[in-house]
Amino acid sequence: MAQFSLEDINKMHHLYRINLINSCSGYKSANLIGTKDLQGVSNVAVFSSVTHLGSNPGLLGFFLRPTTVIRNTYDNIKKTGIYTLNHIHQDILNDAHHTSAKYEASISEFDVTNLEEEYKDELSAPFVKGCPIQMAMEYVEEYPIKANNTILLIGRITKLYVPDDLLEKDGFINLSKGKVATINGLDGYAVPELKTRLEYQRPKEVFEKIDD
Amino acid sequence: MAQFSLEDINKMHHLYRINLINSCSGYKSANLIGTKDLQGVSNVAVFSSVTHLGSNPGLLGFFLRPTTVIRNTYDNIKKTGIYTLNHIHQDILNDAHHTSAKYEASISEFDVTNLEEEYKDELSAPFVKGCPIQMAMEYVEEYPIKANNTILLIGRITKLYVPDDLLEKDGFINLSKGKVATINGLDGYAVPELKTRLEYQRPKEVFEKIDD
Repeated sequence: MAQFSLEDINKMHHLYRINLINSCSGYKSANLIGTKDLQGVSNVAVFSSVTHLGSNPGLLGFFLRPTTVIRNTYDNIKKTGIYTLNHIHQDILNDAHHTSAKYEASISEFDVTNLEEEYKDELSAPFVKGCPIQMAMEYVEEYPIKANNTILLIGRITKLYVPDDLLEKDGFINLSKGKVATINGLDGYAVPELKTRLEYQRPKEVFEKIDD
Repeated sequence: MAQFSLEDINKMHHLYRINLINSCSGYKSANLIGTKDLQGVSNVAVFSSVTHLGSNPGLLGFFLRPTTVIRNTYDNIKKTGIYTLNHIHQDILNDAHHTSAKYEASISEFDVTNLEEEYKDELSAPFVKGCPIQMAMEYVEEYPIKANNTILLIGRITKLYVPDDLLEKDGFINLSKGKVATINGLDGYAVPELKTRLEYQRPKEVFEKIDD
Protein backbone atom coordinates (compact mmCIF):
# COMPACT_ATOMS: atom_id res chain seq x y z
CA MET A 1 0.00 0.00 0.00
CA ALA A 2 1.44 3.37 -1.06
CA GLN A 3 0.76 6.24 1.35
CA PHE A 4 1.13 9.93 0.56
CA SER A 5 0.99 12.58 3.28
CA LEU A 6 0.27 16.25 2.64
CA GLU A 7 4.02 16.84 2.82
CA ASP A 8 4.71 14.05 0.30
CA ILE A 9 2.14 15.56 -2.07
CA ASN A 10 3.63 19.03 -1.72
CA LYS A 11 7.18 17.76 -2.35
CA MET A 12 6.62 15.36 -5.26
CA HIS A 13 7.51 16.14 -8.88
CA HIS A 14 4.73 18.24 -10.36
CA LEU A 15 4.03 15.82 -13.23
CA TYR A 16 3.72 12.92 -10.80
CA ARG A 17 1.40 15.03 -8.62
CA ILE A 18 -0.78 16.04 -11.58
CA ASN A 19 -1.28 12.40 -12.54
CA LEU A 20 -1.83 11.22 -8.98
CA ILE A 21 -4.25 13.89 -7.80
CA ASN A 22 -6.18 13.93 -11.09
CA SER A 23 -6.75 10.17 -10.71
CA CYS A 24 -7.76 10.08 -7.07
CA SER A 25 -11.26 11.57 -7.23
CA GLY A 26 -12.56 8.58 -9.24
CA TYR A 27 -14.04 8.41 -12.72
CA LYS A 28 -14.90 11.71 -14.38
CA SER A 29 -17.46 12.81 -16.92
CA ALA A 30 -16.09 13.29 -20.45
CA ASN A 31 -17.62 16.27 -22.21
CA LEU A 32 -16.81 18.53 -25.11
CA ILE A 33 -17.89 22.12 -24.54
CA GLY A 34 -18.75 23.98 -27.76
CA THR A 35 -18.72 27.78 -27.96
CA LYS A 36 -18.41 30.54 -30.53
CA ASP A 37 -16.76 33.92 -30.15
CA LEU A 38 -18.22 37.22 -31.37
CA GLN A 39 -16.02 37.04 -34.49
CA GLY A 40 -17.65 33.74 -35.43
CA VAL A 41 -14.73 31.45 -34.56
CA SER A 42 -15.99 28.24 -33.01
CA ASN A 43 -14.22 26.49 -30.15
CA VAL A 44 -14.50 23.02 -28.71
CA ALA A 45 -12.61 21.75 -25.66
CA VAL A 46 -12.58 18.65 -23.49
CA PHE A 47 -13.71 19.05 -19.86
CA SER A 48 -13.72 16.34 -17.20
CA SER A 49 -15.33 18.34 -14.39
CA VAL A 50 -18.94 18.67 -15.58
CA THR A 51 -21.05 17.79 -12.54
CA HIS A 52 -24.76 17.48 -11.81
CA LEU A 53 -25.97 20.19 -9.41
CA GLY A 54 -29.70 19.63 -9.44
CA SER A 55 -32.55 18.46 -11.62
CA ASN A 56 -35.19 21.12 -10.91
CA PRO A 57 -34.05 23.38 -12.47
CA GLY A 58 -31.64 21.25 -14.50
CA LEU A 59 -28.27 22.71 -13.54
CA LEU A 60 -24.76 21.51 -14.35
CA GLY A 61 -21.48 23.03 -13.21
CA PHE A 62 -17.87 22.77 -14.30
CA PHE A 63 -14.54 24.13 -13.10
CA LEU A 64 -12.06 26.08 -15.17
CA ARG A 65 -8.81 27.87 -14.69
CA PRO A 66 -8.79 31.44 -15.96
CA THR A 67 -5.11 31.30 -16.87
CA THR A 68 -5.00 28.47 -19.44
CA VAL A 69 -6.20 27.91 -22.99
CA ILE A 70 -9.52 26.98 -21.47
CA ARG A 71 -9.92 30.73 -21.30
CA ASN A 72 -11.35 30.59 -24.83
CA THR A 73 -14.29 28.61 -23.56
CA TYR A 74 -14.79 30.94 -20.62
CA ASP A 75 -14.47 34.13 -22.69
CA ASN A 76 -16.94 32.87 -25.27
CA ILE A 77 -19.50 31.85 -22.66
CA LYS A 78 -19.19 35.19 -20.89
CA LYS A 79 -19.68 37.09 -24.15
CA THR A 80 -22.52 35.02 -25.62
CA GLY A 81 -24.19 33.52 -22.54
CA ILE A 82 -24.50 30.12 -24.20
CA TYR A 83 -22.58 26.90 -24.83
CA THR A 84 -23.15 23.26 -25.66
CA LEU A 85 -22.26 20.06 -23.83
CA ASN A 86 -21.57 16.96 -25.90
CA HIS A 87 -20.67 13.54 -24.52
CA ILE A 88 -17.39 12.05 -25.68
CA HIS A 89 -17.91 8.55 -27.05
CA GLN A 90 -15.84 5.64 -28.26
CA ASP A 91 -15.44 6.79 -31.88
CA ILE A 92 -13.99 10.24 -31.13
CA LEU A 93 -11.61 9.63 -28.21
CA ASN A 94 -8.47 10.78 -30.04
CA ASP A 95 -9.97 13.92 -31.55
CA ALA A 96 -11.75 14.80 -28.32
CA HIS A 97 -8.51 14.46 -26.37
CA HIS A 98 -6.65 16.57 -28.93
CA THR A 99 -8.86 19.56 -28.06
CA SER A 100 -6.77 19.84 -24.89
CA ALA A 101 -3.90 21.20 -27.03
CA LYS A 102 -3.37 24.92 -26.58
CA TYR A 103 -4.52 26.57 -29.80
CA GLU A 104 -4.87 30.31 -30.23
CA ALA A 105 -8.38 31.73 -30.03
CA SER A 106 -8.34 32.40 -33.79
CA ILE A 107 -8.08 28.69 -34.58
CA SER A 108 -11.13 26.45 -34.32
CA GLU A 109 -10.48 22.95 -32.99
CA PHE A 110 -13.11 21.82 -35.50
CA ASP A 111 -10.62 22.76 -38.26
CA VAL A 112 -7.73 20.73 -36.84
CA THR A 113 -9.66 17.55 -35.93
CA ASN A 114 -12.30 15.34 -37.52
CA LEU A 115 -14.88 16.66 -35.06
CA GLU A 116 -17.76 18.22 -36.99
CA GLU A 117 -19.82 21.24 -36.01
CA GLU A 118 -23.58 20.88 -35.98
CA TYR A 119 -26.05 23.76 -35.66
CA LYS A 120 -29.67 23.38 -34.67
CA ASP A 121 -32.60 25.13 -33.03
CA GLU A 122 -31.09 28.50 -33.94
CA LEU A 123 -28.43 28.20 -31.23
CA SER A 124 -25.29 30.04 -32.33
CA ALA A 125 -22.94 27.74 -30.36
CA PRO A 126 -21.82 24.57 -32.15
CA PHE A 127 -22.83 21.08 -31.10
CA VAL A 128 -20.44 18.23 -31.84
CA LYS A 129 -22.06 16.10 -34.52
CA GLY A 130 -22.71 12.47 -33.64
CA CYS A 131 -22.34 12.80 -29.89
CA PRO A 132 -24.88 10.52 -28.20
CA ILE A 133 -26.01 13.22 -25.79
CA GLN A 134 -26.05 16.90 -26.69
CA MET A 135 -27.22 19.80 -24.55
CA ALA A 136 -27.80 23.48 -25.18
CA MET A 137 -26.73 25.41 -22.08
CA GLU A 138 -27.36 28.91 -20.79
CA TYR A 139 -24.98 30.67 -18.40
CA VAL A 140 -26.49 31.16 -14.92
CA GLU A 141 -23.75 32.24 -12.53
CA GLU A 142 -20.16 31.69 -11.49
CA TYR A 143 -18.16 31.43 -8.29
CA PRO A 144 -14.47 32.31 -8.03
CA ILE A 145 -12.89 29.63 -5.83
CA LYS A 146 -10.49 31.28 -3.41
CA ALA A 147 -8.64 28.10 -2.48
CA ASN A 148 -6.98 27.73 -5.90
CA ASN A 149 -8.13 30.53 -8.17
CA THR A 150 -10.40 28.35 -10.30
CA ILE A 151 -13.93 29.28 -11.35
CA LEU A 152 -17.09 27.23 -10.89
CA LEU A 153 -19.37 28.05 -13.82
CA ILE A 154 -23.02 27.02 -13.55
CA GLY A 155 -25.40 26.66 -16.48
CA ARG A 156 -29.00 25.68 -17.08
CA ILE A 157 -29.99 22.98 -19.59
CA THR A 158 -32.23 24.63 -22.18
CA LYS A 159 -32.41 21.73 -24.62
CA LEU A 160 -31.46 18.07 -24.33
CA TYR A 161 -31.09 15.63 -27.22
CA VAL A 162 -30.96 11.87 -26.54
CA PRO A 163 -31.26 8.99 -29.04
CA ASP A 164 -34.44 6.98 -28.39
CA ASP A 165 -32.58 3.71 -27.83
CA LEU A 166 -30.59 5.15 -24.90
CA LEU A 167 -33.69 6.44 -23.12
CA GLU A 168 -35.46 4.11 -20.70
CA LYS A 169 -39.11 4.38 -19.69
CA ASP A 170 -38.40 6.15 -16.41
CA GLY A 171 -36.15 8.83 -17.93
CA PHE A 172 -32.86 7.02 -17.22
CA ILE A 173 -30.31 7.54 -20.01
CA ASN A 174 -28.31 4.36 -20.55
CA LEU A 175 -24.89 5.88 -21.22
CA SER A 176 -23.27 2.55 -22.02
CA LYS A 177 -25.66 1.99 -24.96
CA GLY A 178 -24.24 5.23 -26.41
CA LYS A 179 -20.64 4.09 -25.89
CA VAL A 180 -20.14 7.19 -23.72
CA ALA A 181 -16.62 7.56 -22.32
CA THR A 182 -15.39 8.31 -18.82
CA ILE A 183 -12.00 9.77 -17.89
CA ASN A 184 -9.45 8.34 -15.43
CA GLY A 185 -6.93 11.01 -14.44
CA LEU A 186 -5.74 13.37 -17.14
CA ASP A 187 -5.42 11.04 -20.07
CA GLY A 188 -7.04 7.66 -19.38
CA TYR A 189 -10.30 6.79 -21.14
CA ALA A 190 -12.74 3.96 -20.52
CA VAL A 191 -16.06 3.10 -22.18
CA PRO A 192 -18.09 1.39 -19.42
CA GLU A 193 -20.78 -1.26 -19.67
CA LEU A 194 -23.70 -0.75 -17.29
CA LYS A 195 -23.57 -3.46 -14.64
CA THR A 196 -26.71 -2.90 -12.58
CA ARG A 197 -29.40 -0.45 -11.56
CA LEU A 198 -30.20 -0.58 -7.86
CA GLU A 199 -33.51 0.27 -6.24
CA TYR A 200 -34.39 3.39 -4.32
CA GLN A 201 -33.19 2.70 -0.78
CA ARG A 202 -35.26 3.00 2.39
CA PRO A 203 -34.01 2.32 5.92
CA LYS A 204 -34.10 -1.35 6.95
CA GLU A 205 -37.21 -1.90 9.07
CA VAL A 206 -35.61 -3.02 12.29
CA PHE A 207 -33.87 0.35 12.53
CA GLU A 208 -36.64 2.50 11.17
CA LYS A 209 -38.58 3.15 14.35
CA ILE A 210 -35.82 3.50 16.90
CA ASP A 211 -36.20 6.50 19.18
CA ASP A 212 -33.33 8.86 19.80
CA MET B 1 -33.99 11.22 -31.33
CA ALA B 2 -35.80 12.44 -28.21
CA GLN B 3 -35.69 16.20 -27.64
CA PHE B 4 -36.50 17.97 -24.39
CA SER B 5 -36.92 21.74 -24.24
CA LEU B 6 -36.68 23.77 -21.04
CA GLU B 7 -40.49 23.76 -20.94
CA ASP B 8 -40.60 19.97 -21.38
CA ILE B 9 -38.12 19.54 -18.53
CA ASN B 10 -40.10 21.87 -16.27
CA LYS B 11 -43.39 20.09 -17.01
CA MET B 12 -42.33 16.42 -16.84
CA HIS B 13 -43.09 14.11 -13.90
CA HIS B 14 -40.54 14.77 -11.19
CA LEU B 15 -39.32 11.15 -11.03
CA TYR B 16 -38.77 11.11 -14.79
CA ARG B 17 -36.91 14.43 -14.52
CA ILE B 18 -34.71 13.21 -11.68
CA ASN B 19 -33.64 10.18 -13.71
CA LEU B 20 -33.16 12.14 -16.92
CA ILE B 21 -31.21 15.09 -15.56
CA ASN B 22 -29.11 12.95 -13.23
CA SER B 23 -28.04 10.85 -16.23
CA CYS B 24 -27.25 13.64 -18.67
CA SER B 25 -24.00 14.99 -17.22
CA GLY B 26 -22.16 11.73 -18.02
CA TYR B 27 -20.47 9.24 -15.74
CA LYS B 28 -19.98 10.27 -12.14
CA SER B 29 -17.45 9.45 -9.46
CA ALA B 30 -18.64 6.94 -6.85
CA ASN B 31 -17.44 7.79 -3.36
CA LEU B 32 -18.36 7.00 0.20
CA ILE B 33 -17.84 9.92 2.57
CA GLY B 34 -17.04 8.87 6.13
CA THR B 35 -17.59 11.19 9.10
CA LYS B 36 -18.13 11.03 12.84
CA ASP B 37 -20.26 13.31 15.02
CA LEU B 38 -19.19 14.75 18.37
CA GLN B 39 -21.13 12.01 20.18
CA GLY B 40 -19.00 9.37 18.45
CA VAL B 41 -21.63 8.12 15.99
CA SER B 42 -20.02 7.34 12.64
CA ASN B 43 -21.72 8.07 9.32
CA VAL B 44 -21.05 6.93 5.79
CA ALA B 45 -22.93 8.11 2.70
CA VAL B 46 -22.66 7.69 -1.05
CA PHE B 47 -21.84 10.80 -3.10
CA SER B 48 -21.61 11.02 -6.89
CA SER B 49 -20.48 14.65 -7.17
CA VAL B 50 -16.89 14.48 -5.90
CA THR B 51 -14.86 16.47 -8.44
CA HIS B 52 -11.19 17.33 -8.93
CA LEU B 53 -10.53 21.06 -8.43
CA GLY B 54 -6.76 21.20 -8.59
CA SER B 55 -3.65 19.21 -7.83
CA ASN B 56 -1.46 21.83 -6.15
CA PRO B 57 -2.80 21.99 -3.51
CA GLY B 58 -4.75 18.75 -3.89
CA LEU B 59 -8.35 19.95 -3.66
CA LEU B 60 -11.60 18.08 -4.23
CA GLY B 61 -15.12 19.46 -4.07
CA PHE B 62 -18.59 17.96 -3.78
CA PHE B 63 -22.14 19.29 -3.77
CA LEU B 64 -24.74 18.66 -1.11
CA ARG B 65 -28.25 19.72 -0.29
CA PRO B 66 -28.68 21.11 3.20
CA THR B 67 -32.22 19.75 3.50
CA THR B 68 -31.73 15.98 3.08
CA VAL B 69 -30.25 13.14 5.10
CA ILE B 70 -26.93 14.15 3.62
CA ARG B 71 -27.11 16.81 6.28
CA ASN B 72 -25.47 14.30 8.65
CA THR B 73 -22.36 14.39 6.51
CA TYR B 74 -22.40 18.17 6.33
CA ASP B 75 -23.03 18.66 10.05
CA ASN B 76 -20.25 16.27 10.99
CA ILE B 77 -17.75 17.91 8.64
CA LYS B 78 -18.64 21.36 9.95
CA LYS B 79 -18.20 20.25 13.55
CA THR B 80 -15.03 18.20 13.18
CA GLY B 81 -13.36 19.75 10.12
CA ILE B 82 -12.47 16.33 8.71
CA TYR B 83 -13.87 13.50 6.61
CA THR B 84 -12.73 10.58 4.50
CA LEU B 85 -13.28 9.72 0.83
CA ASN B 86 -13.39 6.05 -0.15
CA HIS B 87 -13.88 4.72 -3.66
CA ILE B 88 -16.85 2.44 -4.21
CA HIS B 89 -15.75 -0.80 -5.87
CA GLN B 90 -17.33 -3.90 -7.36
CA ASP B 91 -17.64 -5.89 -4.12
CA ILE B 92 -19.61 -3.29 -2.15
CA LEU B 93 -22.07 -1.86 -4.69
CA ASN B 94 -25.21 -2.90 -2.82
CA ASP B 95 -24.07 -1.78 0.61
CA ALA B 96 -22.64 1.45 -0.75
CA HIS B 97 -25.93 2.23 -2.51
CA HIS B 98 -27.89 1.45 0.64
CA THR B 99 -26.17 4.34 2.43
CA SER B 100 -28.49 6.61 0.40
CA ALA B 101 -31.38 5.50 2.67
CA LYS B 102 -32.46 8.18 5.11
CA TYR B 103 -31.35 7.02 8.56
CA GLU B 104 -31.51 9.21 11.62
CA ALA B 105 -28.25 10.77 12.78
CA SER B 106 -28.14 8.42 15.77
CA ILE B 107 -27.82 5.36 13.50
CA SER B 108 -24.51 4.51 11.87
CA GLU B 109 -24.75 3.13 8.33
CA PHE B 110 -21.83 0.89 9.34
CA ASP B 111 -24.25 -0.89 11.71
CA VAL B 112 -26.90 -1.58 9.07
CA THR B 113 -24.61 -2.69 6.22
CA ASN B 114 -21.60 -4.94 5.79
CA LEU B 115 -19.39 -1.90 5.31
CA GLU B 116 -16.63 -1.91 7.94
CA GLU B 117 -15.07 1.09 9.66
CA GLU B 118 -11.31 1.40 9.60
CA TYR B 119 -9.31 3.88 11.69
CA LYS B 120 -5.73 4.87 10.98
CA ASP B 121 -3.19 7.64 11.38
CA GLU B 122 -5.08 8.96 14.40
CA LEU B 123 -7.86 10.40 12.21
CA SER B 124 -11.15 10.34 14.09
CA ALA B 125 -13.27 9.98 10.94
CA PRO B 126 -13.83 6.41 9.71
CA PHE B 127 -12.39 5.05 6.48
CA VAL B 128 -14.31 2.31 4.67
CA LYS B 129 -12.24 -0.87 4.99
CA GLY B 130 -11.14 -2.48 1.74
CA CYS B 131 -11.81 0.48 -0.55
CA PRO B 132 -9.07 0.61 -3.20
CA ILE B 133 -8.49 4.32 -2.71
CA GLN B 134 -8.90 6.07 0.63
CA MET B 135 -8.28 9.71 1.44
CA ALA B 136 -8.20 11.73 4.63
CA MET B 137 -9.71 15.14 3.94
CA GLU B 138 -9.67 18.48 5.72
CA TYR B 139 -12.43 21.08 5.28
CA VAL B 140 -11.22 24.19 3.44
CA GLU B 141 -14.22 26.30 2.47
CA GLU B 142 -17.76 26.20 1.15
CA TYR B 143 -19.90 28.13 -1.30
CA PRO B 144 -23.67 28.39 -1.04
CA ILE B 145 -25.01 28.04 -4.60
CA LYS B 146 -27.75 30.58 -5.14
CA ALA B 147 -29.19 28.94 -8.24
CA ASN B 148 -30.58 25.93 -6.35
CA ASN B 149 -29.68 26.23 -2.68
CA THR B 150 -27.01 23.54 -2.74
CA ILE B 151 -23.59 23.86 -1.14
CA LEU B 152 -20.20 23.31 -2.76
CA LEU B 153 -17.88 21.99 -0.06
CA ILE B 154 -14.14 22.02 -0.78
CA GLY B 155 -11.55 19.96 1.04
CA ARG B 156 -7.82 19.36 0.96
CA ILE B 157 -6.31 15.87 0.68
CA THR B 158 -4.17 15.34 3.77
CA LYS B 159 -3.44 11.64 3.25
CA LEU B 160 -3.88 9.35 0.26
CA TYR B 161 -3.72 5.54 0.34
CA VAL B 162 -3.36 3.58 -2.91
CA PRO B 163 -2.52 -0.13 -3.37
CA ASP B 164 0.85 -0.52 -5.09
CA ASP B 165 -0.54 -2.50 -8.01
CA LEU B 166 -2.88 0.35 -9.03
CA LEU B 167 -0.11 2.96 -9.06
CA GLU B 168 1.82 3.48 -12.29
CA LYS B 169 5.32 4.93 -12.54
CA ASP B 170 4.15 8.44 -13.44
CA GLY B 171 1.65 8.73 -10.57
CA PHE B 172 -1.39 7.61 -12.60
CA ILE B 173 -3.80 5.51 -10.51
CA ASN B 174 -5.32 2.76 -12.65
CA LEU B 175 -8.85 2.77 -11.28
CA SER B 176 -9.94 -0.24 -13.33
CA LYS B 177 -7.31 -2.44 -11.64
CA GLY B 178 -9.07 -1.62 -8.36
CA LYS B 179 -12.51 -2.47 -9.80
CA VAL B 180 -13.57 1.09 -8.95
CA ALA B 181 -17.19 1.88 -9.83
CA THR B 182 -18.74 4.80 -11.67
CA ILE B 183 -22.35 5.99 -11.42
CA ASN B 184 -24.82 6.53 -14.28
CA GLY B 185 -27.74 8.65 -13.11
CA LEU B 186 -29.08 8.02 -9.63
CA ASP B 187 -28.88 4.27 -9.44
CA GLY B 188 -26.85 2.79 -12.31
CA TYR B 189 -23.41 1.37 -11.57
CA ALA B 190 -20.62 0.34 -13.94
CA VAL B 191 -17.13 -1.00 -13.28
CA PRO B 192 -15.06 0.22 -16.25
CA GLU B 193 -12.02 -1.32 -17.90
CA LEU B 194 -9.34 1.20 -18.92
CA LYS B 195 -9.26 1.37 -22.71
CA THR B 196 -6.37 3.71 -23.45
CA ARG B 197 -4.11 6.44 -22.15
CA LEU B 198 -3.55 9.22 -24.65
CA GLU B 199 -0.49 11.46 -24.87
CA TYR B 200 -0.19 15.06 -23.76
CA GLN B 201 -1.49 17.06 -26.71
CA ARG B 202 0.31 19.89 -28.46
CA PRO B 203 -1.06 21.92 -31.41
CA LYS B 204 -0.51 20.32 -34.81
CA GLU B 205 2.49 22.00 -36.42
CA VAL B 206 0.86 23.47 -39.48
CA PHE B 207 -1.35 25.59 -37.24
CA GLU B 208 1.20 26.38 -34.58
CA LYS B 209 2.80 29.48 -36.06
CA ILE B 210 -0.16 31.19 -37.67
CA ASP B 211 -0.33 34.90 -36.92
CA ASP B 212 -3.52 36.55 -35.77
